[in-house]
Amino acid sequence: MPEASLVDQALTRNKARHEHYAGLDYIRLTDGFSGWPRGTVFLGDRAVPGYPSIGRVLNLEQGLAQHFRAPFHAEEKIDGFNVRLIRYRGQELAFSRGGFVCPFTTDRLPDLIDSAVFDAEPDLVICAEVAGPGNPYLEGHPPEIDEDVALLVFDLMRWDRVEFMEVEERRELLRAHGLPAVPYHGRFTADQAGELREVIAGLDARGVEGVVLKEEGDRRKRAKYVTPASVVQDLSAMGDALLDLPPEYFTNRLMRLVLILEESPELDRETLRTELGGALVDPLLDAAREHRETHKVAHHFCSRFRHRANAERFAEHLRRVPQSQIHATVRSLEQAADGYWELRFDRVFPRISGLLGNFLSGGQVYD
Amino acid sequence: MPEASLVDQALTRNKARHEHYAGLDYIRLTDGFSGWPRGTVFLGDRAVPGYPSIGRVLNLEQGLAQHFRAPFHAEEKIDGFNVRLIRYRGQELAFSRGGFVCPFTTDRLPDLIDSAVFDAEPDLVICAEVAGPGNPYLEGHPPEIDEDVALLVFDLMRWDRVEFMEVEERRELLRAHGLPAVPYHGRFTADQAGELREVIAGLDARGVEGVVLKEEGDRRKRAKYVTPASVVQDLSAMGDALLDLPPEYFTNRLMRLVLILEESPELDRETLRTELGGALVDPLLDAAREHRETHKVAHHFCSRFRHRANAERFAEHLRRVPQSQIHATVRSLEQAADGYWELRFDRVFPRISGLLGNFLSGGQVYD
Repeated sequence: MPEASLVDQALTRNKARHEHYAGLDYIRLTDGFSGWPRGTVFLGDRAVPGYPSIGRVLNLEQGLAQHFRAPFHAEEKIDGFNVRLIRYRGQELAFSRGGFVCPFTTDRLPDLIDSAVFDAEPDLVICAEVAGPGNPYLEGHPPEIDEDVALLVFDLMRWDRVEFMEVEERRELLRAHGLPAVPYHGRFTADQAGELREVIAGLDARGVEGVVLKEEGDRRKRAKYVTPASVVQDLSAMGDALLDLPPEYFTNRLMRLVLILEESPELDRETLRTELGGALVDPLLDAAREHRETHKVAHHFCSRFRHRANAERFAEHLRRVPQSQIHATVRSLEQAADGYWELRFDRVFPRISGLLGNFLSGGQVYD
Repeated sequence: MPEASLVDQALTRNKARHEHYAGLDYIRLTDGFSGWPRGTVFLGDRAVPGYPSIGRVLNLEQGLAQHFRAPFHAEEKIDGFNVRLIRYRGQELAFSRGGFVCPFTTDRLPDLIDSAVFDAEPDLVICAEVAGPGNPYLEGHPPEIDEDVALLVFDLMRWDRVEFMEVEERRELLRAHGLPAVPYHGRFTADQAGELREVIAGLDARGVEGVVLKEEGDRRKRAKYVTPASVVQDLSAMGDALLDLPPEYFTNRLMRLVLILEESPELDRETLRTELGGALVDPLLDAAREHRETHKVAHHFCSRFRHRANAERFAEHLRRVPQSQIHATVRSLEQAADGYWELRFDRVFPRISGLLGNFLSGGQVYD
């Protein structure tokens, strides 16, 4: 349990901020502080621990040898956004990675998970990925979630401690409560890179993002590793926002791809270069073709809410938490035949929008 | 002719620097100053004008309409480095774009050009591209220059004036003196984008970099435009230096390619995406494969000199003028059977070298 003085110190040092959501006051860490990860949420005198970053290895065999000492479990990495679910004063809430209440996930929780688990385990922190085309934050989604959103649990924590439940214990608890878990791909040791590569080849063929590896025992070391398919999908999803994202978005992914292929030539599909070239050319080419009419480059989103008030809170959240220079514009909020409220909005990429306009009209550039 | 006080002002304001080369003292502009371009060289009380930047258009049709009012000439853009050749006190010298004496070109001038032109035209400044696989500055070269280097003249100026000779007059003078000129592709007007695109399709098929367009008359407006082939070649030439170049090297070229294809679907060759993907993957993949033995990523150069002293001056120039963090290491300097001195050196890319080493040995990255 955090000392009150710790939260005060974090506030004083600008590592924490007060936030409000629908009558709820809370404090979130905007940076790691005194052992608590960024995104940790303080509610009254208790803490919902932030979800710590998991390091990526780019060479599987050496990564395993260097980082893992005990057997570890391989679980599917889901292309969605990370939330932590809790019950607080009788209400279920979902927090984003940064420690904001996520109005979308909080609204949709009854569709995504049976909250009866909190009756038996009131201090549970459920760490899950929300994924699918109806996801309001991300362009990509797993190939097998093809409408709206689904939620898959990948970790459990408890209030007031930065500690993950052991994989076996967590899987048992999720089974007992009928909660949806990320797909499990087996238990391995550090000398089994070859076996793990076979798993990854299967995931790549399915278009899955990759794996997260979680060590048993006290160290609970973790690492993530992705597939070639995920690199192509990520680049394609954001290829038309080429100049609005940090350039590392593109260069890091090319590095990942090259190191996967260096280690695993068997993953070098015949069409991979064509797919990669297409991912980098076609979304931007489509954007350039549409630009004469639209005068901007934007991604269109449609997310469904149970309650109109939550859709409005989400729209407010979009305004308040801009992703760097990328801004969101709400197009419509309408009730569908099934009673859900559909929020349609665009994320507009101002830099590429402006530059395409300039270049298409014949502007000269000195580069 | 520049006033002496102008040079003093430029020196005082840190826009100019004193330089020395083999007993010659000169001053070069490190920035544009008072109408004189960056790279202008002051020798005694006279000036060799710098070569001004030429703006690039990314949409040919709109670019022509926006920038050109009089007919213009299309000349081949050569993938080499820009030099200015002069005779000063009986000696022929080549200056780089930045205004340094280029020891390589200066050494090789007797092989590249007949300097008798300076007997008739002592105040000529010959602006030329030096290109070929023996070029010590650049990784790429035109497909049709397949050994050592060649020199092609693309402009003439005169001492003490920032002004290009008219294209027709220049072509006549080059013909009269038997000097090598860049290939000429015709005279067009701003409404002839279609005709020019046909020229560009031919250049693309030959793997040529692009065109430079030069307006007749007083405005002498200029613009450059490149081919899809040049984008793929540039990316491929530097794909293994992915993290050592400014990321704009990659993103600008993707923008160029997309805008060419938007305007000219007929240039969208069937294999273009495969070539693009390969350009971004294969050089870095080869570098990763070699890294276990070499522990670094480097490009190998071999340039030929007539005189040993000039090769040594060039090696010294490499040490003194680093390209940002990329450093050069001399491997050998040996006299070949034909009497030429062959300088072999590497350009080492430290950032990608270090990161590949870290990733290949299993390092974890938090991105």
